Amino acid sequence: MANVVIIGAGLIPCGKHLHRSIVDMGAEVSLMALKDAGIKPTMVEAGFFGNILGGRLFSDFTIGQHIFWEVGINKVPVLNIENACTSGSSGIYLAYNMIAAGQIDVAIVAGVEKMNVPEMGLVDSGRSEPDTLMGLVAPATFGIRARRHMEEFGTTLEQLALVSVKNRKHAVHNPNAQFRKPVSIEQVLQAPMVADPLTRLQCSPIADGAAAVILCSAKLAKKIGRGVNIESIILASGNYENPQDLLRWETVQRTARLAYEKAGIGPQDLDVAECHDAFSITEILEYEGLGFCEPGEGGRFIEEGHSTIGGRLPVNPSGGLLSRGHPVGASGILQVVEIVTQLRGEAGARQVEGAKTGLTQNMGGDKAADVRACLVSILSV
Amino acid sequence: MANVVIIGAGLIPCGKHLHRSIVDMGAEVSLMALKDAGIKPTMVEAGFFGNILGGRLFSDFTIGQHIFWEVGINKVPVLNIENACTSGSSGIYLAYNMIAAGQIDVAIVAGVEKMNVPEMGLVDSGRSEPDTLMGLVAPATFGIRARRHMEEFGTTLEQLALVSVKNRKHAVHNPNAQFRKPVSIEQVLQAPMVADPLTRLQCSPIADGAAAVILCSAKLAKKIGRGVNIESIILASGNYENPQDLLRWETVQRTARLAYEKAGIGPQDLDVAECHDAFSITEILEYEGLGFCEPGEGGRFIEEGHSTIGGRLPVNPSGGLLSRGHPVGASGILQVVEIVTQLRGEAGARQVEGAKTGLTQNMGGDKAADVRACLVSILSV
Repeated sequence: MANVVIIGAGLIPCGKHLHRSIVDMGAEVSLMALKDAGIKPTMVEAGFFGNILGGRLFSDFTIGQHIFWEVGINKVPVLNIENACTSGSSGIYLAYNMIAAGQIDVAIVAGVEKMNVPEMGLVDSGRSEPDTLMGLVAPATFGIRARRHMEEFGTTLEQLALVSVKNRKHAVHNPNAQFRKPVSIEQVLQAPMVADPLTRLQCSPIADGAAAVILCSAKLAKKIGRGVNIESIILASGNYENPQDLLRWETVQRTARLAYEKAGIGPQDLDVAECHDAFSITEILEYEGLGFCEPGEGGRFIEEGHSTIGGRLPVNPSGGLLSRGHPVGASGILQVVEIVTQLRGEAGARQVEGAKTGLTQNMGGDKAADVRACLVSILSV
Repeated sequence: MANVVIIGAGLIPCGKHLHRSIVDMGAEVSLMALKDAGIKPTMVEAGFFGNILGGRLFSDFTIGQHIFWEVGINKVPVLNIENACTSGSSGIYLAYNMIAAGQIDVAIVAGVEKMNVPEMGLVDSGRSEPDTLMGLVAPATFGIRARRHMEEFGTTLEQLALVSVKNRKHAVHNPNAQFRKPVSIEQVLQAPMVADPLTRLQCSPIADGAAAVILCSAKLAKKIGRGVNIESIILASGNYENPQDLLRWETVQRTARLAYEKAGIGPQDLDVAECHDAFSITEILEYEGLGFCEPGEGGRFIEEGHSTIGGRLPVNPSGGLLSRGHPVGASGILQVVEIVTQLRGEAGARQVEGAKTGLTQNMGGDKAADVRACLVSILSV
């Protein structure tokens, strides 16, 4: 069924890479992905590069062309994509569409972010946005959602904290994760408050990081060997129609529904998922939006252990944004790399046994109104 | 033959729009394009937005989603593209590909830049680029090319100046142009020197501006009525193989050759062209790279009047980047809007009589080595 296959993946650990440039990190993961795929750079027919802050922090533009040229990919069309935290996966979306249409056979998609610089403190959520000017930056909007979820559904502070505890527990076994030391519910709740009720350990950290994948047509993949099928990949925008409804993420629901329909499966068929846990409450809202549980049941879903490795549907075995790290323009690709690793059975001590079908959910540009971009992909072997 | 058609276009004059935001300008041209196409916003199935400096100057991200939402386009996939001065036309490239593949029927592409802000003075060509650190910013690289062209082919200062004179002469008749007062060769040569031999009147100015187009499938266009066919659109990167050869733009030649091949025509079949005249020498190099004349003959080509309206192949009837203006992320779309206007026969006093086939050439991210992105499109009625 699937006519687009992921044949190569590469990543570097998230963290502080103070002496590395965006191009340097991007070239390394691109080379890793090419090597993993076992193809020559000259076979690549198009390149897509996801990044948000390169222009803002370093006045760097057309970075993708520079990175791909460094690894021997030139002449071909290259597109630099900014879709907030969905930048990297939006590149996969475009590459998928061109290959699915038969326009090209092989594409590379890389995502990089370098955030550990002093100027990072000057980056806000958009100086032209009234929301931002009034103080409604990302942690604040999610704090409001968390309080509302507690009020409406009885979700507890402990259930929220469990998201961070569970993802850290997974990250212990991920050599590429930014934070690998286990944390307890008490530690999460006693961490400094960022936006009530979200403490620092419930907010995804700043990270430098990079990831890349190679996509190719099923026809060509057969000759090359192993691959992970892209059953569906859907990118959507918010509907902005009901900004007061903070708990029912229509955009996430709609994107997921389209992805399930195209793949011909439902949430019950998933073995593993990587979700956009920018904050602890975010992952709980995503359980509900993606149909892993009923609306309002997200707190109980994690408390009962369903989303832990060994549970019914392990979520964020990589450690997620909260512990694996969130180098914004790379995060959507890091999610896909984790699912590829899981479906290949190469995830070591964090392997979800027998995983054959996985989902990634990535989103960005959240405002009080709605998310600006949401992407759901379904992969299988 | 063509299966993708431009059915709507909109633009605002380039210049100083000090009290207007990127979203404001983008929404206006998007509405104009929708109205021109005669379609409802709910018919649009994907949106592409070209911009370079919004993140750098205003910390604004996912701007395309915001703009399109303002005009009633939501839920659909939206992608923000940065490809330096090729950002806007790269959006057209992506929209074209999705429609040509049958993945969608209708797409909107908008490009906006707001450059008239004090912080613009802090924007350089990439702080991480060795070329920039050594002073080889854009005007310098083109100054070197101009001196080399004079040395190798005998091109004169007057021929270089004629590019500015000719494009200003065209702009006199374009109500949307930034500069409409005629200039003489003497005025161009006596203007303040920017990078020898290029004076200020030979360098494209800073501008605020915006443009949008609506693309749709030929099948749907038939029902809607008039349209301009996209015969081909090619996006390519530099080859970086021979950076010392400053005068033979292999990337422009290659991109044009692919575009001509796909459209099944040659430069002799063109009636009108919009080229990326970022500097006077750039347009001369483009005559040669696009096959309008032989290598080295660019200076004579303009001197003999071939590229003036009324000549063999009018180039930049809009006034080009030099006089129409160069709001960087919008420029590639402004070129397409001009050709659409010409092919519809709606260009008024600057109309190229009987124009049936036109070309646009847009490029960005030039380094000493090569251009980072080059795009050529061929349109027809």
